[in-house]
Order: sequence, then C-alpha cells, then structure tokens
Amino acid sequence: MPDPATANEPVLLREDHGRVAVLTLNRPRAMNALSSDLIAALDQEFDRLNADETIRVVVIQANGRAFCAGHDLREVRSSEDYAFHHALMSRCSAMMLKIARLKQPVIAKVRGIATAAGCQLVAQCDLAIASAEAKFATPGVHIGLFCGTPSVPLGRNVGSKRALDMLFTGEPVSAETALRDGLLSRVVPDDHLDAAAMDLAQHIASKSPLVLAQGKAMFHRHMAMDLEQAYAYASSTMAGGLMREDAKLGIDAFVQKKPQPDWPGR
Amino acid sequence: MPDPATANEPVLLREDHGRVAVLTLNRPRAMNALSSDLIAALDQEFDRLNADETIRVVVIQANGRAFCAGHDLREVRSSEDYAFHHALMSRCSAMMLKIARLKQPVIAKVRGIATAAGCQLVAQCDLAIASAEAKFATPGVHIGLFCGTPSVPLGRNVGSKRALDMLFTGEPVSAETALRDGLLSRVVPDDHLDAAAMDLAQHIASKSPLVLAQGKAMFHRHMAMDLEQAYAYASSTMAGGLMREDAKLGIDAFVQKKPQPDWPGR
Amino acid sequence: MPDPATANEPVLLREDHGRVAVLTLNRPRAMNALSSDLIAALDQEFDRLNADETIRVVVIQANGRAFCAGHDLREVRSSEDYAFHHALMSRCSAMMLKIARLKQPVIAKVRGIATAAGCQLVAQCDLAIASAEAKFATPGVHIGLFCGTPSVPLGRNVGSKRALDMLFTGEPVSAETALRDGLLSRVVPDDHLDAAAMDLAQHIASKSPLVLAQGKAMFHRHMAMDLEQAYAYASSTMAGGLMREDAKLGIDAFVQKKPQPDWPGR
Repeated sequence: MPDPATANEPVLLREDHGRVAVLTLNRPRAMNALSSDLIAALDQEFDRLNADETIRVVVIQANGRAFCAGHDLREVRSSEDYAFHHALMSRCSAMMLKIARLKQPVIAKVRGIATAAGCQLVAQCDLAIASAEAKFATPGVHIGLFCGTPSVPLGRNVGSKRALDMLFTGEPVSAETALRDGLLSRVVPDDHLDAAAMDLAQHIASKSPLVLAQGKAMFHRHMAMDLEQAYAYASSTMAGGLMREDAKLGIDAFVQKKPQPDWPGR
Repeated sequence: MPDPATANEPVLLREDHGRVAVLTLNRPRAMNALSSDLIAALDQEFDRLNADETIRVVVIQANGRAFCAGHDLREVRSSEDYAFHHALMSRCSAMMLKIARLKQPVIAKVRGIATAAGCQLVAQCDLAIASAEAKFATPGVHIGLFCGTPSVPLGRNVGSKRALDMLFTGEPVSAETALRDGLLSRVVPDDHLDAAAMDLAQHIASKSPLVLAQGKAMFHRHMAMDLEQAYAYASSTMAGGLMREDAKLGIDAFVQKKPQPDWPGR
Repeated sequence: MPDPATANEPVLLREDHGRVAVLTLNRPRAMNALSSDLIAALDQEFDRLNADETIRVVVIQANGRAFCAGHDLREVRSSEDYAFHHALMSRCSAMMLKIARLKQPVIAKVRGIATAAGCQLVAQCDLAIASAEAKFATPGVHIGLFCGTPSVPLGRNVGSKRALDMLFTGEPVSAETALRDGLLSRVVPDDHLDAAAMDLAQHIASKSPLVLAQGKAMFHRHMAMDLEQAYAYASSTMAGGLMREDAKLGIDAFVQKKPQPDWPGR
C-alpha cells in the first residue's frame, strides 16, 4: 500500500559501494513498515542480488528515526479475508527465508527501534550491527496479535526464556541486552554506526565470494542436522573447498607471508 | 511423603490476584522438595488452571528461604524398586511437561536456592524472574546421581558448555550468571522481587488470553521445527490470528491511538 | 607431517595427575597445528582413555604461546587430491566426535590463541576454561577456506549471529566475549589458569565415574531429541541411576550429613 506522504519515492533504495549493496528501507513516515510493496521490493532485490556476481555483501538499513515497525497495520486491516492475510504473511515469510538463502552475507544495520516483523528482519539477517541506542521489541500482545512469525528467528537467536519475555510483555530491550542474548552480533556507539557497518561490510566483501557463499549455505544447512551428519557434511564440503583455486592461492599466500590474493572466486 | 513438621498444611497453596494465580510451594522445612505429594498437587493444579477461563498468568513461588531443593531424597530412598523410581521420575517429568503445555504463561519467581529438580522447574517455566541473591545448581554429582531430567530444560536454556559445567561440578551459579546464560529472563534486587514479579504477571495478564495461549503453543511447537516449516506454520497461525476479534479491536485501537481494548478473547 | 624442529619429540604428551589425564599438544613451533600425526595421536589417546578405568577427567592443554592454530597448512597443501583432503578432514572430524563420546568429561584449558580447528577443539570439548588473555578465531576467510568443520560445534555453542560474525570476518574474540556467547564455561586470570583448571578437573574427578560417564552420554543424546522424548529418556535413565550403589551411598551420606562416600562406580 503506497505511503501517501512519499508516494513518489521508491519504498526501497539500493546504493552499491563497490562490492557492498546497501538496501535502505524508505518509508520513514510510516516507520518503514513492511507494506506489501516493501516486502515485494525486498523480495525482488534479493533475487537480483542472488544473480549479481559483483556484490559480495548486503547491508539493510533504514531512513528516518525508526529501523522498521513491522507490518503495515493499516494495510493489514484493509481486508478481513483469510486468503488475503495468509498471502501477506506467506510473502513476508518467503522474503525472510530468502535472506538465509541469499548467497551473500546479509547484515542488518540498526538505528532506532525495530519492532515486530522489523525485529524479525534483524533476527533473520546473518549478522546484525546496531547503535547502542537502538531498541528491539515484539509488541504484538499490545494489539491482540502474537508476534508469531517474528518469534521464529527471535527464538532461534535468543532462546526461549528471553524470547518469551519479549513476546509476552511486548517490552523493548536495549541493544546491549540484545547483544548479550544473541540477537545482535555487534553494538557500537551511535555516531560510529555508519562507519562501523561499512567497515564490517567492506572487510567481509574483501573475501572470496565463493567462500562466503558456500560457507553461508553450509552453515545454515548443518545447523539443522545432528552432530554426526553435520560433521560428515562439513568434512566433505571442506575437502571440496581445498580443491578450489581460492584456497590454494589463499593458503600459499599465508604460508609464504604474502598479502591476501585477489580471489578468482572459483 | 508428608512432611512431618507441616503435616497439617497443604504442600501447595494457591492464591488468585485477579487474573494471576500464584502457586506457592509450601514445604519450607524440607526446602520445598518435590515430594510425590507436591508433584501431584502441582500436576492437578495445572489441570485446573488449564480449564480456568479467569486466570491469564501463573506464578510459581515458594515459602521459606529456599525456592526448591529438587526431589525429596528421603522419599527417593524409601524404595529400591525400579518401578517405584521410574513412576516417580515419570510423574515429575509429566508435571514439568504440563508447564510447557499449559495455556497460560508460567513465571518462576525465585528467591533463595533452586537445585536439581528445583532448578529444572525454573528452567521449564516460560519466564523466570529471580532475586539478585538467588542461586541455581544441579548438584546430583555430589550424591551419586546425575541431574538427568533437570539437564533436559537446563541444556536447552543455557547451552552445552555452561550446562555441563553446572552438571559436572554441581557448583551454584549466581542469578546474574543465570541471566547471562539464558536460564532466567529477569533479575531484580531482592527487595523488589515481590513487586516486580507481580507487576510482570499483571502486565501480561492484561493481554488477550487467546493471544497468550495461542502464542505460547505456537512458540513451543515451531521451536521444534526446521526454519521453513516453522515459517509456514507461523504464517498460517498469524493469518488465523488476524481473523479474530482481539486482533481487529487491538489493531484498530492502536491505529486510532485509543487505549488497549477489553479483549473479548475470541 | 613431522615438525622438523621437534621431530624427536612426541606431538602429544600425556601426564596423569591421579584420576586426571592431562594431554598436551606438543608442536609449539607450529602453534600446535593439528597435523595428521597429532590428529592420530589424539584419536588413539581417546581410545586408550575410553578403556581406562582409573581416569575420570581429561584436560587438553598446549605447550607454547598458542593453544592450537588449526590444521597444518603445509600438510594441507602437500596434496591436490580430493581423497587426501577428504580423508584428512574426516579423520579430524572423527577425532572431534570421539570427544563427545568419550566416557570422561573433557576440559579444554586454553592459553593463547585458538584458531580454526583449534577453536573447534575448544568448542567440541564438554567444558572449556580459558585465561582472560586467550583469543578465539575462525579465520578461514583470510585464506580462501571457510571454517566449515569448526563452524559445526561453534554454531552449536554460540548461536548463529555470533558464529557467523566470527566466520565471515575471521576476527578474534576475547575470552570474556567467548564466555558470554557460550564457547567457554569459565574464564580466569592468566596466572590462575593452571591452578583453576587442575582444581576444576580434580573436583569433577572426585565424583562417581559411573555418574560422569552415564550423565555425559545422556546429556549429549537427549539434546538431539525433542522435549517429550528427552524427558522420557532422562526419566528412565535417572530411575536406573537410582538402582545403583553410587546413588544409594551418595544419597544416604547426604541425608545423614556424612562426607561424600568413596564411589564404588557401579
């Protein structure tokens, strides 16, 4: 549903900084709520990025004071039809799953508050760096709607005790608490966030795209396996990795104390 | 087995504060050990609460200096029969599982020490708020009996490294450490515990009972699924939630900046 | 592959301190890299320990400034044959899995840096105690080879957000951070590490070997089960435990306020 105040602007911006694509949620007056338009824009951008050989890392940030307020509640209430709601929730979940399947690592860069499906977006990203002043909440209980889909990655990030506290109370938690609990990978002072997020992204983007892509896929796959399966699968994948040019060049450079090579990506 | 010192008193007390039921373990001279009587009393009370439309939140607290010392060791040693022990352990496990299946959120409110099956009780509750002076331990190694059933929810709360440290050493950990590790959701100064626990319970109890019950069941179910299944299940459940009166009223009130509605609970 | 500088010394040392076996990685000039020789030596020593009735706890430490630098990169690059690499990775994974299956609790005692498969070794141990100055990293991205097998226990210890940060950036984390995240069970000042690790090991070694072995096996098994299965399995195992001499003596001593018994181990 178009945001009337920004109807002429795209709901999602993309700016590439070398090998880093920065996606910006651009519905600041709606606190970057995940309208159908914005969900679709993210979904399509992920498809484009997955086919993009030049981009190594994706950053998701937001314009305005809030990171993301979750679903667009006016849109949600525009229908009372189950099929409408099911399609909306399913498209949002499919978009979230694409983050885990995207070949590039995806970093959430969070300033302001991330609530409900906005908190889910942070939880679903591979990495998350936040301003020390950022806040996180799953406040669905306040509006009669449990944050069910947000609780999927939230519970897997922070564990049952802290997730259920957030889900049953709806209360916001600080970035420091979110870091302790496993929702974030890093917290920095607010005025360092832009530089720290770009440094992090560019540092990762300097690595072999093949290694990043295969490593990400392997990690998410083996985490769903039992320990023995996971070791067998990771052993095979690493042995395959050792046959690649990137590993041969990288290890030789390391052993010979030379700088990191230009990765051929094969 | 009756506690001789308090044979005339019930081993479990219940006092309702509006929509909050407070259960009090009442074997203070036995450090509230989980005798068969107390396990049965908890089990029966959970059945009653699950059928109780007026209660939205359950708090479990304890009388006396200790929260709960685990199984009643005198009772445990009253038989050398495997069937007796198996029945005792199975009844305790069944009672613990009822906490996860109860429709209401269950909050452990911990003052003093929680050991062995007492620590398990804390770990199994949905939320846990503790005094900063509370302690937690799984000291079965000291008595030649590994804390096996306690290790089930403990390992799932705090992870392998910290759980095995507690299980192999039997050493107590502080509330602060238990919070960091994921065994607790909140820690407060000891003299704030009563008020903070009741505020927490009443805050949650002000939410839709339907949302709390369906959210709790959904969370525990999807946490046992793989990510894709979990998203599909949560998407359907949320779409269903959006068809309910509670969500319609709650979202409309929020969008219109009105106070939280009285939840019809349907 | 023999370390030329120490070709006459064994790559793995073992010294027993009563009931505690201390294994020392002994390739200090190679930063204790896990050469085939060292992997095989660990593997064989685990087999010996598993059959050793006198040893109750195993400690893994290292000689020199580093704990362990992971695979031996010169050896890795000595072949371009997939079968060679697959065999090397598989033997290393099999050795790591033996840690989880060993009857004795295994404690990693970490001074210096633990990287790649060295970090994996820490993650795979049951417990880990580290100097406050220790560091942990999975820097495979720097050499074109994602730390796949290290990510198996690392992800299970610290969760996705923190694991992927370590895996994608390769940056070292401090002992304090590793403790917060669940990679370690304890951190102590560097000059206390030797005494603290031995105290920890001897404390655990004073417990019943039967309880330690059955408890360890039960814990790792039930963590792979769903909650209901885990409770059923742990209930049966505990009921069996209550039939053992160790539990009978241990509980009776506790109830009668006598000292911990000599455990018959049956």
